[in-house]
Amino acid sequence: MGDTAKAAIVGVGQTEFSKDSGRSELQLAAEAVKAAIDDAGLQPADIDGFVTFTQDENDELDIMRSVGIPRTRWVSRTSFGGSGSAATVQQAAAAVISGMADAVVIYRAFNERSGQRFGQPAQIQLAPLNLYLPFGLDTPAKMYSLWFQRYMDTYGLSNADFGLYSVQARTYAATNPRAWFYERPITLDDHQNSRWIVEPILRLLDCCQESDGGVALVVTTDQRARDLRHPVVRIAAATHGNLIHGSTLFNYFHPDIARFAEAESVAEQLYATAGLAPADIDVAMLYENFSPVVFYQLEAFGFCGRGEAKDFIADGNIALDGATPVNTHGGLLGEGYIHGVNNIIEGVRQLRGTAANQVGGARNALVAAGLSGMILTAD
Amino acid sequence: MGDTAKAAIVGVGQTEFSKDSGRSELQLAAEAVKAAIDDAGLQPADIDGFVTFTQDENDELDIMRSVGIPRTRWVSRTSFGGSGSAATVQQAAAAVISGMADAVVIYRAFNERSGQRFGQPAQIQLAPLNLYLPFGLDTPAKMYSLWFQRYMDTYGLSNADFGLYSVQARTYAATNPRAWFYERPITLDDHQNSRWIVEPILRLLDCCQESDGGVALVVTTDQRARDLRHPVVRIAAATHGNLIHGSTLFNYFHPDIARFAEAESVAEQLYATAGLAPADIDVAMLYENFSPVVFYQLEAFGFCGRGEAKDFIADGNIALDGATPVNTHGGLLGEGYIHGVNNIIEGVRQLRGTAANQVGGARNALVAAGLSGMILTAD
Repeated sequence: MGDTAKAAIVGVGQTEFSKDSGRSELQLAAEAVKAAIDDAGLQPADIDGFVTFTQDENDELDIMRSVGIPRTRWVSRTSFGGSGSAATVQQAAAAVISGMADAVVIYRAFNERSGQRFGQPAQIQLAPLNLYLPFGLDTPAKMYSLWFQRYMDTYGLSNADFGLYSVQARTYAATNPRAWFYERPITLDDHQNSRWIVEPILRLLDCCQESDGGVALVVTTDQRARDLRHPVVRIAAATHGNLIHGSTLFNYFHPDIARFAEAESVAEQLYATAGLAPADIDVAMLYENFSPVVFYQLEAFGFCGRGEAKDFIADGNIALDGATPVNTHGGLLGEGYIHGVNNIIEGVRQLRGTAANQVGGARNALVAAGLSGMILTAD
Repeated sequence: MGDTAKAAIVGVGQTEFSKDSGRSELQLAAEAVKAAIDDAGLQPADIDGFVTFTQDENDELDIMRSVGIPRTRWVSRTSFGGSGSAATVQQAAAAVISGMADAVVIYRAFNERSGQRFGQPAQIQLAPLNLYLPFGLDTPAKMYSLWFQRYMDTYGLSNADFGLYSVQARTYAATNPRAWFYERPITLDDHQNSRWIVEPILRLLDCCQESDGGVALVVTTDQRARDLRHPVVRIAAATHGNLIHGSTLFNYFHPDIARFAEAESVAEQLYATAGLAPADIDVAMLYENFSPVVFYQLEAFGFCGRGEAKDFIADGNIALDGATPVNTHGGLLGEGYIHGVNNIIEGVRQLRGTAANQVGGARNALVAAGLSGMILTAD
């Protein structure tokens, strides 16, 4: 994996994040792809590869015709949801490092609020989930909550502790013009007054948004990146995978579910490959379909010890002036939910020095999403 | 793409190919994966990556638990059908070349005859095909046939010309114990007496089989391959992609549809990367859901000129003692239809010298599948 240093993210693009885009998912994807190519200073004809999610409804050929990409040499997909979002960058990096492609576009676009909503009962059609439906676990919030409950019981948390993260995410979003919740911060009282989604675990303000929008990234070799317009953002490490006791969406089969075993495995690989330690990470994007997942990942990535995430957050460590600013764009709760790929864009912006809530002198950014993750490094 | 020489196929595995496997698709996949790992002389714990088709129903985690693979670092899928079959090898090669994984298993397994049959009306659920259903094009045979008809008209072929390929494929299958049609050769009369599927273009014996079965391959670096048990089969080149005028299953949007523009693009890339010419190819596997596709690909890959495939085949050039033996296992018509991945296994066997119908001294094998392809080279 040391070779992953040979790839870089050279372009980012997005649409606005909304609740009703008013246009097709293909239109959103094409706008984001075009914006990312423009941002890189490339032409559509320079692109010869695609990576997206198996769940994405936009056919690569439709994007090619919409944007004007004449020929591709690489087409791959990550078969997971948000937990595989970092795998898109891993696959694109492998394509350019191995010479299979010169420049790969990653895209993810959907009308996930005005169209099919992931948060509604049984909207996620994945065979492994059928096992849970007879028990009433028919939404992601319910499916995940038993996992979160074990964490709460083990370390003595209440829902108000999760609220500390939500407040921080909305604080960041309030000063990020791209965020849906721009200029709309919340207090802990607001959090505690929001309705229960799964009592006594998750309230409304613990849940990520359902969003309409499109995002895209361009990946090429770091050699080529040096000739392009932006500061080089190298992919120092990227990985994605499963552990044998894992599951597609959640994590009930491990011997100990008060921890996040897959994230620990990802952390171990990323730090070893990049030659970095938790203290070297200047800013972290931690995928949070629900606020408790941040707690698990803070511990898995070694920013604090097990069971210490509550105090770590309460002490201000994930704020902009803290030890490890987390989800500085507002995260999936505050900015928008584009299946985690918008987190990668924020990582790039932090290393370019162009984030709305900029971490001064950021050089190493972690972007983690449960089963997958990457470390990005400013050149 | 020159870097693709750093990957190799080191293990192959399969189940029997049948019309009624009598067991689950997961069982077929696990058996094939286990066989491929054994064939490579590796242990399940050595495997840390997976590649399959988006259409494959077998979850990677289920395979891990069935076979005993503790952890993976790479999971990707090709979003195409058989025309993307060679992309599985491309993705696995990129994973090991880039260091993202050490050893990747490719698998494809289905009960495509006893379960959901691809050949039945409207069984293939792909959005781009909806455009064709109102015109009655509700099976692959019908969807493709208008493309084939243009070729027939342009170059003056009748269905009996396609039969020459079918007879050759069944001749190979008749001496391949792994083939469904082992010891069951056909004559041109048999072909001409088989019923029309799409008159006057395709007869039953022009169509690939619907098969139950599972296949798997193991890919690692060629450096590691040298320490394993079999002669090294290097991936000299591999590619997969689209042209802007293409389509998912067929090819009606190009200015000239009496040729196979995507296959020509694949050929150009493979030969350039591998530094080889058509005359260097000792044996070729050409994906044939229907017999005419062999004709297109013989021309696209430069084994003969445009419109000359009919005479090239009639003159015996694709037979075992011909200029370019093609589908020496019997192909998808004769051996079985495992979405084209069984063609890759035959390519490996030819270069190991262990094929049922062995081409003497074969060193370079082409495995082509329309939108994707590879050249394999004996070390």
